[in-house]
Amino acid sequence: MLLKLRVLLLLVILFIHGDGTSASDPDPIQDFCIPNPKFGSIRTAHLTILPCKNSSEATSDDFVFSGLKGTGNFTDTGLATIPVNPAIFPGINTLGMSFVRADLKVGGINPPHFHPRATEIAYVVEGSVYSGFVDSNNRVFARVIEQGEVMVFPRGLVHFQMNVGEKPATIFASLNSQNPGLQKIPTAVFGSGINEELLEKAFGLSQKQIGSMRRRFDPKTVS
Amino acid sequence: MLLKLRVLLLLVILFIHGDGTSASDPDPIQDFCIPNPKFGSIRTAHLTILPCKNSSEATSDDFVFSGLKGTGNFTDTGLATIPVNPAIFPGINTLGMSFVRADLKVGGINPPHFHPRATEIAYVVEGSVYSGFVDSNNRVFARVIEQGEVMVFPRGLVHFQMNVGEKPATIFASLNSQNPGLQKIPTAVFGSGINEELLEKAFGLSQKQIGSMRRRFDPKTVS
Amino acid sequence: MLLKLRVLLLLVILFIHGDGTSASDPDPIQDFCIPNPKFGSIRTAHLTILPCKNSSEATSDDFVFSGLKGTGNFTDTGLATIPVNPAIFPGINTLGMSFVRADLKVGGINPPHFHPRATEIAYVVEGSVYSGFVDSNNRVFARVIEQGEVMVFPRGLVHFQMNVGEKPATIFASLNSQNPGLQKIPTAVFGSGINEELLEKAFGLSQKQIGSMRRRFDPKTVS
Amino acid sequence: MLLKLRVLLLLVILFIHGDGTSASDPDPIQDFCIPNPKFGSIRTAHLTILPCKNSSEATSDDFVFSGLKGTGNFTDTGLATIPVNPAIFPGINTLGMSFVRADLKVGGINPPHFHPRATEIAYVVEGSVYSGFVDSNNRVFARVIEQGEVMVFPRGLVHFQMNVGEKPATIFASLNSQNPGLQKIPTAVFGSGINEELLEKAFGLSQKQIGSMRRRFDPKTVS
Amino acid sequence: MLLKLRVLLLLVILFIHGDGTSASDPDPIQDFCIPNPKFGSIRTAHLTILPCKNSSEATSDDFVFSGLKGTGNFTDTGLATIPVNPAIFPGINTLGMSFVRADLKVGGINPPHFHPRATEIAYVVEGSVYSGFVDSNNRVFARVIEQGEVMVFPRGLVHFQMNVGEKPATIFASLNSQNPGLQKIPTAVFGSGINEELLEKAFGLSQKQIGSMRRRFDPKTVS
Amino acid sequence: MLLKLRVLLLLVILFIHGDGTSASDPDPIQDFCIPNPKFGSIRTAHLTILPCKNSSEATSDDFVFSGLKGTGNFTDTGLATIPVNPAIFPGINTLGMSFVRADLKVGGINPPHFHPRATEIAYVVEGSVYSGFVDSNNRVFARVIEQGEVMVFPRGLVHFQMNVGEKPATIFASLNSQNPGLQKIPTAVFGSGINEELLEKAFGLSQKQIGSMRRRFDPKTVS
Repeated sequence: MLLKLRVLLLLVILFIHGDGTSASDPDPIQDFCIPNPKFGSIRTAHLTILPCKNSSEATSDDFVFSGLKGTGNFTDTGLATIPVNPAIFPGINTLGMSFVRADLKVGGINPPHFHPRATEIAYVVEGSVYSGFVDSNNRVFARVIEQGEVMVFPRGLVHFQMNVGEKPATIFASLNSQNPGLQKIPTAVFGSGINEELLEKAFGLSQKQIGSMRRRFDPKTVS
Repeated sequence: MLLKLRVLLLLVILFIHGDGTSASDPDPIQDFCIPNPKFGSIRTAHLTILPCKNSSEATSDDFVFSGLKGTGNFTDTGLATIPVNPAIFPGINTLGMSFVRADLKVGGINPPHFHPRATEIAYVVEGSVYSGFVDSNNRVFARVIEQGEVMVFPRGLVHFQMNVGEKPATIFASLNSQNPGLQKIPTAVFGSGINEELLEKAFGLSQKQIGSMRRRFDPKTVS
Repeated sequence: MLLKLRVLLLLVILFIHGDGTSASDPDPIQDFCIPNPKFGSIRTAHLTILPCKNSSEATSDDFVFSGLKGTGNFTDTGLATIPVNPAIFPGINTLGMSFVRADLKVGGINPPHFHPRATEIAYVVEGSVYSGFVDSNNRVFARVIEQGEVMVFPRGLVHFQMNVGEKPATIFASLNSQNPGLQKIPTAVFGSGINEELLEKAFGLSQKQIGSMRRRFDPKTVS
Repeated sequence: MLLKLRVLLLLVILFIHGDGTSASDPDPIQDFCIPNPKFGSIRTAHLTILPCKNSSEATSDDFVFSGLKGTGNFTDTGLATIPVNPAIFPGINTLGMSFVRADLKVGGINPPHFHPRATEIAYVVEGSVYSGFVDSNNRVFARVIEQGEVMVFPRGLVHFQMNVGEKPATIFASLNSQNPGLQKIPTAVFGSGINEELLEKAFGLSQKQIGSMRRRFDPKTVS
Repeated sequence: MLLKLRVLLLLVILFIHGDGTSASDPDPIQDFCIPNPKFGSIRTAHLTILPCKNSSEATSDDFVFSGLKGTGNFTDTGLATIPVNPAIFPGINTLGMSFVRADLKVGGINPPHFHPRATEIAYVVEGSVYSGFVDSNNRVFARVIEQGEVMVFPRGLVHFQMNVGEKPATIFASLNSQNPGLQKIPTAVFGSGINEELLEKAFGLSQKQIGSMRRRFDPKTVS
Repeated sequence: MLLKLRVLLLLVILFIHGDGTSASDPDPIQDFCIPNPKFGSIRTAHLTILPCKNSSEATSDDFVFSGLKGTGNFTDTGLATIPVNPAIFPGINTLGMSFVRADLKVGGINPPHFHPRATEIAYVVEGSVYSGFVDSNNRVFARVIEQGEVMVFPRGLVHFQMNVGEKPATIFASLNSQNPGLQKIPTAVFGSGINEELLEKAFGLSQKQIGSMRRRFDPKTVS
């Protein structure tokens, strides 16, 4: 019986996958939709979808997120992020926004990446961060931003950050999609298994160099 | 048993709360959504919806469509179409596009019709095709287009084609909706059962003439 | 000097033509935009665009339309319409809606037509009206509706009306686009100059019959 | 067991059919979606969603609403409304519109309120109604409108009405969302339990006055 | 003369660059659009629109906002806001987001208000703030949030804040529209000139009480 | 003179009030908009905008594009593209689509790139092409597609192609935006001037290797 319920739940999720839920997110058609913890979190590869509570069961706590007080786990490049989406902050579901806390160690970097479905507003809570993006004409717009300053990264453009200060940096960034998407250039290109000959020609690198890059960004070892 | 059904109903509803299928198709909120063949194809009158695979089960083949190599079945007017939508090409699901191969026999026509939900780009792969559309002021924009040429039919406007060359013609057309819709004027008007008196007055035809038109376009005999 | 201003006005209008103003109309980005009578009405073939007033010059009257108290001019089929859009009702500009008063003489018809960019809600103010639409499967949904009843015509589908009562009928209809568009089937198909051979094949009519239809719906003589 | 799964699948599909509603409502992706009475009405706090019929089971009656012939129930302020949405008029589901009949007793008022997700077109069927709205600069646009006149209330702005004639007034209003939303200022502010100190400071009222307001608009006693 | 025409053409184009803003804001159609200071700031009652630079003249500084380091001017209720939109932060133009710094004195309040065109994400930079909103059923969702916590206010719903801590509070809030709109309930209702009789009936207040409220919120004296 | 400029500026602004260009392209609000050659082509860095003709001056030729019969100019990697957008094909303006002919020499490649604003449908007119894309989990979906086959590249995801056949290959691709955007990874990352230290850390390359990459992709020498 329990098993069958799970099967049906799965079925629903898969269907939901197929619907036209929008990305330059559509306006909500009701006040809000709080996912229902009774049914647990249902994860698929790209998206966690949660059944919603009856709105009369929603509480004030559903609309407050308290998990940004500490840092996340740091990667090799000195970056720790806590991306906040409907899976971990129920109240934000269907409302067309998400946000993230990013911490950078001294000298740490957030490698070139882009969000296909959102513009990003980055507010420096603390520190001194070289930040920038590349436009369609391959021009870089980058400079150091300090505590209390805000930089905007237009939707879909490659951007990056590096802590150039002498202490850790903290950024609070918000995005105008509940599921902005993310492609990190190094891993997407060199850690994904694109044909090596194509990569050699595209980047003008030798077979050996490409092999070395691929070992570094093997998706099994690099998150 | 009844109780269980209610629980599942509730579940589905709550899910539905969180989404928003659109038609001038919304951007996807995930990379893609491959329908899952395990659950079979589920057809309704106007739309085939398929449950989606877990994205980790998707394969390269899911994103390639190989069914356009031959022609479809020809109608009485010398037209054969292979419309490609998510029901037959899973990888295109939720991505806001569909396409079609159309073949016209010598002298064959594609009768006046319109797609309520899409603009169409028609690329002539082979042949010589009189093509055109009517604008809101009842002006016709039509001419013969040849191999390698492209004509655009703006969203929602009545358009048509006729093979005026000396050999069969092939067209590859793409549309900016995964479900563009289709109303063929002759069958929609004369083969649908609209009140005969209204049709007589609208077209200035006699009762006998309308009767003759309706026999020709009876939806039971004309597809 | 005056001449030059006109040239520049024209220029602006033409540009505005090229912008992505939306049809499943986008939400406004300000409260409203009242066209400015100082600059006069600027008509193009399909659209009248008016420069807007500074919002501090807007008055209550700008948001009220008083021109629906009488009927419009009747056509040969016994139909009179007063379509209301931003050109004649300034306050509705950019707000995503328009409306129309339609009057039908006894036995009068509104011929099969469709609005590519809007759903229509038709409220019968007075009378008894056979009303209906055709869906994508060529099924007709039609019946007589009486005073106080409402029928909905889904976006982009062919629909029609006929006064089957014993007195004139009046309809108040609203549409969810400020420029819903209109293609009347008889004139779009037979009064627009589509190649005759194509029409003969499409409708199974003789050259003589098509010729007769075209004379009837010649766009120069039929509005 | 297998059979049941199929039933549920169908159910889900039908729901998905019905989900096509965002707020600046997205275009439908099929002709229509008639909720299926077999599954009963499923109410949540804010929204009633109904599974859809197979389109071949839809009938003409599904697209006609006949429930506006009489008035609704009057409130203390002399207002009676019959708001029409997909829950009570199946055919309108997914089509991006809804409508309402409002009746005002002599001297009756429709208190200041707003619809977060729709512009409203109000057509006076009978009577003489002081009508208006407030813009973002706190300017009021208001005047008396008579039978046959139309006023537009831009999306999201506070508006109100009062019958200033000597007989009952009737209004037919349509809105460009299937779920426009509604917040009535008096009850939302004074009948919702906002902290009293905050209300005192916001409105410059004494604790006693706020207490009196709250008793009046207690959500348990005022609908 | 010819030269001047070119200048004006350029101007128009640059404007068109800047127009890409609806309310559930549409995606941009280019990377960005930096307003051009050469043409100065052009203010209308509700909106400041700026002509755009040629993108090759954009600089990194255009995408960084440094004006949030101090507080704005405090109102009578102890609130100081610095709302940031394209008029003061050029780089954000057309990108579908805006943001605001809000400071509250000890005991200060942000009165009940709503943004018709955006969801708001409020991040507490410092302090202890009672925050909440009212849903369509007149339920309040409110609680105290502390430094590092985030609350979401769904699009179009009335919300409010009060500093309940013992030191000043600072909030960084972002919204998913470049022009979210704002209606403050006290001034929109009592400071806008709505008919007094209607207000008396709506709020159950005496003529004298309404008069007192109106004096307090006279738009000429209260900002 | 100065005064006149101001008048015209005002005029333009007021117009801008009424519009809303979008990118996941909005539906058109008129049938079409043919740019007007009289005013010449007006190029800005990222976008060419053209004033539109009066629709009565549009001709059938405006809707036909004949420039795809030959190949474009080949780059160093053996790729030649003819991207078709409103600047070179007037009739497509405002209709939400664009298209491109791409030719690949034997062994030629189309380097990893993405279109931030469109899904792409690639139809192989001739040849044998290794084609693929990377999803958000860094999985590659790639295989060889042959003449008559179609591959879809979901919106915003990195994709690439290589001619693996023994003769030149030709592809006809259509995209669901009139301005899909383009970022080529090699030039965007290594040819744009991102801080070298950041690139070294992001890709794990030495200063010398990064220097070598930058010389190769210097935007001044590589188009």
